[in-house]
Amino acid sequence: MELEKLIRDIPDFPKEGILFRDITTLLKDKDGYKEAVERMAKSLEGLGVDIIVGPEARGFIMGSAVAYAINAGLVLARKPGKLPAEAISNSYGLEYGSDSLSLHVDSIKPGQKVAIVDDLLATGGTAKAVCELIEKLGGEVVALRFLIELSDLDGRETLKGYNVDALITY
Amino acid sequence: MELEKLIRDIPDFPKEGILFRDITTLLKDKDGYKEAVERMAKSLEGLGVDIIVGPEARGFIMGSAVAYAINAGLVLARKPGKLPAEAISNSYGLEYGSDSLSLHVDSIKPGQKVAIVDDLLATGGTAKAVCELIEKLGGEVVALRFLIELSDLDGRETLKGYNVDALITY
Repeated sequence: MELEKLIRDIPDFPKEGILFRDITTLLKDKDGYKEAVERMAKSLEGLGVDIIVGPEARGFIMGSAVAYAINAGLVLARKPGKLPAEAISNSYGLEYGSDSLSLHVDSIKPGQKVAIVDDLLATGGTAKAVCELIEKLGGEVVALRFLIELSDLDGRETLKGYNVDALITY
Repeated sequence: MELEKLIRDIPDFPKEGILFRDITTLLKDKDGYKEAVERMAKSLEGLGVDIIVGPEARGFIMGSAVAYAINAGLVLARKPGKLPAEAISNSYGLEYGSDSLSLHVDSIKPGQKVAIVDDLLATGGTAKAVCELIEKLGGEVVALRFLIELSDLDGRETLKGYNVDALITY
């Protein structure tokens, strides 16, 4: 199945000049969605992943399904003020704007093998910030997996040294 | 497995007087998480669910895993301005505050059988608003499933007439 065909292009969203790759048309297609989750799960085989981290909010989507598919735990990287217990935070630049994400301090145990799953690899800023949080807690980032990669934005350069892959590359 | 034991209670979050049921301790436990997804999937057996709708943001979590588990499509009910294509919106009162959710107009086809999956049933306001959106698009809401139900808040009364269930009830 060509997953690319299930992605919808929306020009000028969220602002003029941005071509938004809309994954909702893939998600609602049960066979496309299943295949995306299974391909991502397969790409993590043999890495001994204990924990999947999904960054808010769209990282929750593929992240939670993949965590279930590979029988890993799921940890949420959330926006400030959303995590109820003690947390550490890290800020990052986005393709448009800037933001910050947090992890509960007890979400990852030292030595645990962690994979980050998100829908989009753009500049890699979000993913890099999450890598730093995971490593601060003693976790080992063994893989980063994305549904879509925008290769022009050089996210792989930002994430150099990490095991990075995407299902669809533009 | 007693899933209740994996939930962490956080007093006075997000504001004084609210006892927050923190599901992150369940999600990060791979066996607990797996069992929660499987129990929810099992509770939907025989209903012919075509689409799971997950309300932003925590509904994405269980919603996406359950959609994968039962081989349904996944549709996101998102906060205003987040969906890139044509959408319809509905507002609702929350346990604390008020908000609004949207669905893409092409996310559900008339006659599709839809289940709403979310982490928490409180007053039922969010879920009711999402039911109305689904029905406006011609979908049939065949089930609502929650990880946690706060029975004091009478969400089932708000959702009277629907097939409602939760894995953990307080």
